[in-house]
Amino acid sequence: LPLSLSEYNTHNCIPRKSVLYQDNMKLFREEGIWNYSTMLVREDLGLLILGAREAIYALDIKDISIKKSVVNWPVTDEKLKECTSKGKHAESECRNFIRALHKMDHNTMYVCGTNAFSPTCVNVTYSEGHLTRGDRLEEGKGKCPFDPIQRYSSVMVGNELYSATSNNFLGSEPVVLRSGPSSLRTVFKSSWLNEPNFVYMDLVPESDNNPEGDDDKVYLFFSENAVEYDFYNKLLVSRVGRVCKGDVGGQRTLQGKWTSFLKARLDCSLPEPSLPSIVQDVFLLKDSDWTKSVFYAVFTPQSSLSDVSTVCAYNVSTIGQLFDTGKFKTPVTVETSYVKWVMYSGEVPTPRPGACINNAARALEMTRSLDLPDKTLQFISDHPLMDEAVPPLTGRPLLVKKGAMFTCLVVDNVLALDGERHAVLFIGTENGFVQKAVNYAGEMFIIEEIQLYRTPEPIKTMRLSSSTGQLYAGSDYGAVQMPLCDCGRYESCLDCVLARDPYCGWDLSSGVCSAVVNSTKFVQSLKNGDISQCPKSDTLKPENHTLVPGNNIKLPCQPDSNLAQVHWLFSGQPLLSGTKHYIYNGGLLILNASTNDAGPYTCESVEQVNSRTHTRTMAVYELQPQTNKAEEGTETMT
Amino acid sequence: LPLSLSEYNTHNCIPRKSVLYQDNMKLFREEGIWNYSTMLVREDLGLLILGAREAIYALDIKDISIKKSVVNWPVTDEKLKECTSKGKHAESECRNFIRALHKMDHNTMYVCGTNAFSPTCVNVTYSEGHLTRGDRLEEGKGKCPFDPIQRYSSVMVGNELYSATSNNFLGSEPVVLRSGPSSLRTVFKSSWLNEPNFVYMDLVPESDNNPEGDDDKVYLFFSENAVEYDFYNKLLVSRVGRVCKGDVGGQRTLQGKWTSFLKARLDCSLPEPSLPSIVQDVFLLKDSDWTKSVFYAVFTPQSSLSDVSTVCAYNVSTIGQLFDTGKFKTPVTVETSYVKWVMYSGEVPTPRPGACINNAARALEMTRSLDLPDKTLQFISDHPLMDEAVPPLTGRPLLVKKGAMFTCLVVDNVLALDGERHAVLFIGTENGFVQKAVNYAGEMFIIEEIQLYRTPEPIKTMRLSSSTGQLYAGSDYGAVQMPLCDCGRYESCLDCVLARDPYCGWDLSSGVCSAVVNSTKFVQSLKNGDISQCPKSDTLKPENHTLVPGNNIKLPCQPDSNLAQVHWLFSGQPLLSGTKHYIYNGGLLILNASTNDAGPYTCESVEQVNSRTHTRTMAVYELQPQTNKAEEGTETMT
Repeated sequence: LPLSLSEYNTHNCIPRKSVLYQDNMKLFREEGIWNYSTMLVREDLGLLILGAREAIYALDIKDISIKKSVVNWPVTDEKLKECTSKGKHAESECRNFIRALHKMDHNTMYVCGTNAFSPTCVNVTYSEGHLTRGDRLEEGKGKCPFDPIQRYSSVMVGNELYSATSNNFLGSEPVVLRSGPSSLRTVFKSSWLNEPNFVYMDLVPESDNNPEGDDDKVYLFFSENAVEYDFYNKLLVSRVGRVCKGDVGGQRTLQGKWTSFLKARLDCSLPEPSLPSIVQDVFLLKDSDWTKSVFYAVFTPQSSLSDVSTVCAYNVSTIGQLFDTGKFKTPVTVETSYVKWVMYSGEVPTPRPGACINNAARALEMTRSLDLPDKTLQFISDHPLMDEAVPPLTGRPLLVKKGAMFTCLVVDNVLALDGERHAVLFIGTENGFVQKAVNYAGEMFIIEEIQLYRTPEPIKTMRLSSSTGQLYAGSDYGAVQMPLCDCGRYESCLDCVLARDPYCGWDLSSGVCSAVVNSTKFVQSLKNGDISQCPKSDTLKPENHTLVPGNNIKLPCQPDSNLAQVHWLFSGQPLLSGTKHYIYNGGLLILNASTNDAGPYTCESVEQVNSRTHTRTMAVYELQPQTNKAEEGTETMT
Repeated sequence: LPLSLSEYNTHNCIPRKSVLYQDNMKLFREEGIWNYSTMLVREDLGLLILGAREAIYALDIKDISIKKSVVNWPVTDEKLKECTSKGKHAESECRNFIRALHKMDHNTMYVCGTNAFSPTCVNVTYSEGHLTRGDRLEEGKGKCPFDPIQRYSSVMVGNELYSATSNNFLGSEPVVLRSGPSSLRTVFKSSWLNEPNFVYMDLVPESDNNPEGDDDKVYLFFSENAVEYDFYNKLLVSRVGRVCKGDVGGQRTLQGKWTSFLKARLDCSLPEPSLPSIVQDVFLLKDSDWTKSVFYAVFTPQSSLSDVSTVCAYNVSTIGQLFDTGKFKTPVTVETSYVKWVMYSGEVPTPRPGACINNAARALEMTRSLDLPDKTLQFISDHPLMDEAVPPLTGRPLLVKKGAMFTCLVVDNVLALDGERHAVLFIGTENGFVQKAVNYAGEMFIIEEIQLYRTPEPIKTMRLSSSTGQLYAGSDYGAVQMPLCDCGRYESCLDCVLARDPYCGWDLSSGVCSAVVNSTKFVQSLKNGDISQCPKSDTLKPENHTLVPGNNIKLPCQPDSNLAQVHWLFSGQPLLSGTKHYIYNGGLLILNASTNDAGPYTCESVEQVNSRTHTRTMAVYELQPQTNKAEEGTETMT
């Protein structure tokens, strides 16, 4: 049974803890430099390589506020003049915005920048604590966008760069390109790419232990104008596409073009009717068995009337199966003018169009894509789109959240004390928060949200370093580092266990919440939030307050979880918010106090996990009537 | 240039005044009776006729809490048993829910009820203060829904009932029916009606002074499944349809069926991409020149992810022109399975399919629809849908509002002091409020929102009586009456003029805000909110308060407009909300007061109309330090 949105909301929307901006956040930015939007983690060199506007930084992977080296790469005056003469803005467009950073052999990076609408690439080397830019500039057209604000993706496979961007100054000619000795590209027609917005690319090593002798593949995620729907407006859809690593193009047909470009719609729909949601970022959670690898994707609504973001996961093998065995869509001309895309039900040529060279092809003595027959090639040239959409892993979104839009995500694979592995999602938002979420037995749980920037700042990119346990986020303003877990935030055993953070457990020996190591001395209960192993806590001693009749009295109490409800008791009886008592976020306000209000007050925090209720006394007060003379003010200001 | 949604919000979303539920609201309900959802205003009899569950009431039109008479119309035990045996619910379904109330000659009403899923109609007469139900029961199938919760519409024209409902127990067979001597109905196929939801029907007397000798027409508003779009889900669209009053069906083709049924999509789209919005209710604002009559319609989103309701207006003549001269859509079969609806570009037969019998037809010696050639009839049978959509009057929605969904509307035509007529919209909402809105020079302005029910209660129906100046609203809970204006609510000249209510003006002679009559002694300024004619108000005398150090002090001040901002001044200097001073909805809170806080406090309300700023002093306080001894509390509790 599909959940309604309201059920989704109730279950998934609220992070258990909201961690507001803290001044000790590790931040890197330099005065006058903007757009910290490209990152490369080099655990081997102990560096985070950061690309910004006209600068590439080598930062300490453990503390990115420590700059080890920088290499500047400004545009030449000539380039700047040429760019502005074409009507582009000198500061926001005609600069060299670093957009690609790829790991090459040893200590080298392949770096591309927009270079004043004249994309250019170069090698940058880190050696003896210094970054050095190579002399040999390479043409970056098709490898890197012209326009700094255009979405883009690329991946380095061996020494070949796969890139998806637009290929011209106007941004009107999209291309999926492999540069290098055997350069290949997409056919320039709308059935292949229809005003696409590229967001992610990655390699899946599908040749590993492959019984069909299949090839490695590069997957591509993007959104584009739908050709298959007919709507009263332009309609965007999300897509996954892929090409084969061994593809070398066709002999006559599709010469120099992909023979293996296939695409399908990505489905991440809610039970409610809505326009298709738009993929914004993807993360490939790799498994040593590639068939078990999973793509996690964040989606935002197509319509600004909605503020519901979603996360869906897709199995690599589900996508593969759709491409390998699914039906194709075919265009049909209706009434001379309209073209309608419908399921192709005719005969599909052999070898199957879009397939990589595999054992089946080799059996037909086709060992390279050059050997493929024209019939197969012509078919794929005309039918790159699959009929069916790729369904999400669980048949529906993993996470649905109203509020600030999701912009990007990374996923960490965490081994918990129970021996199970959990995929922990770190989702960046438009207002500079990270949502840390995990799925327990089908139920999504947001452990915490962490504010990374003092002011709302869209997070543009995120990178993970599992070995150092750090997350790096980039925005226009600066790059920020945060630990994947900060268990010390949980001050009591109850709070530590109810946090259900797979990184954290309550250390019974030292009596603090800390990162788990394989040991029996920790209390952790991820699925049930079972606190029975926690040590009994002492009874709270009441705090005495004096009651001055006629005064407003404030008794502070703040629950440590957003999921907890606060209950106030007066002499053991529950108090309700009303004209006399006002229960607010920070505590209880007793308005116009009278001597009748003297007595004991208790603040309790009540939190549910899987319909089990945990009650904790947060504060106890004793209001004592004034004895003989008036006192100056009675409340505790916090 | 289209406005973005945020601009819409800023301009239109906030009602100037929120009038919360008041106990003196005139309410009619009887214990144990529910579903007060059908109303007929009989100004000639001084009655509001109200249909509820198994009862018809005659209420005093001036005060509906006064019941003049009631006639009960329960189901028989036999009917009840038969209905429950078919699996329907005894209380919520197998009762006689009154759904149609129509004015007949003299003091008679034609009444239809669902009668335990066996719709039945009867005459009800009001005479000498008593309602009497006639003996002759008529079969109500096709005239009234079987199912009480199904949306439905009907209109009485002369003594012929036009109804749009479903024609069978299952609710699966929709029909637009004219009952009476020349009964006609729609063809039962999905191109005519595709799971429709009927909301409104009305007659436009288009034969009046018609140079083309055209016929009167009945317009029908509904939503249904789109056939013309191709989307990954079922897609609803809003429609306007119409038939000719003089239609008597075809001779061979379309025998007993409408020869004049045409329909078109209703457009009320926002600048943002979104699913088509769904029409919920319509009101025909009649003009003595029918070509100037306007349909006002409320729409709600198709997707529950959005909470944006809209109002669009449609010119009768724009709709007429589309039906009379627009292109048709035609179905084309694609690849044997799909049917695609595209613009028909072939030859259209003569007389034009779907047209009423007019001078052009009469010139061809066709004086009745029976005379129409098969070719014309076959064409309209196959092509009832127009290619283009009906655009809203101003090219975009008149009103766009986030929040509680709109459910229904009525429109009053108000003559203001400036001699202009203004259409004042009264819009009912899902949570029991009425939004009173008016359009000044293209800018929509919500004068006030009025809460009609103590608890949130969807308003199901609304009726207007302009002659008595009353609005009637019906819900499951009860029927409520409110005056179209309550000028006395505005206590100052400034508030009265800034309200920009065309019903109200400031009476300079009596010094109160009251309903305008044609006289020069009133101040009214609808477009500009110009208060220069208002008399100068006296300076407020400061209210003295004693300051007890350490206390929290509350200084009340509430602006009389939601559009006003409150500014606080201390000794003439602006105060900001912070840890010391907390400015909230009800006034200013000074926390932990000290002797430094003594002095004069002023509360000002600042309101803008058309970028002109009006400032008004709402309250002045003088905080005086304690003189000799402690006092018990210092604040004014309101």
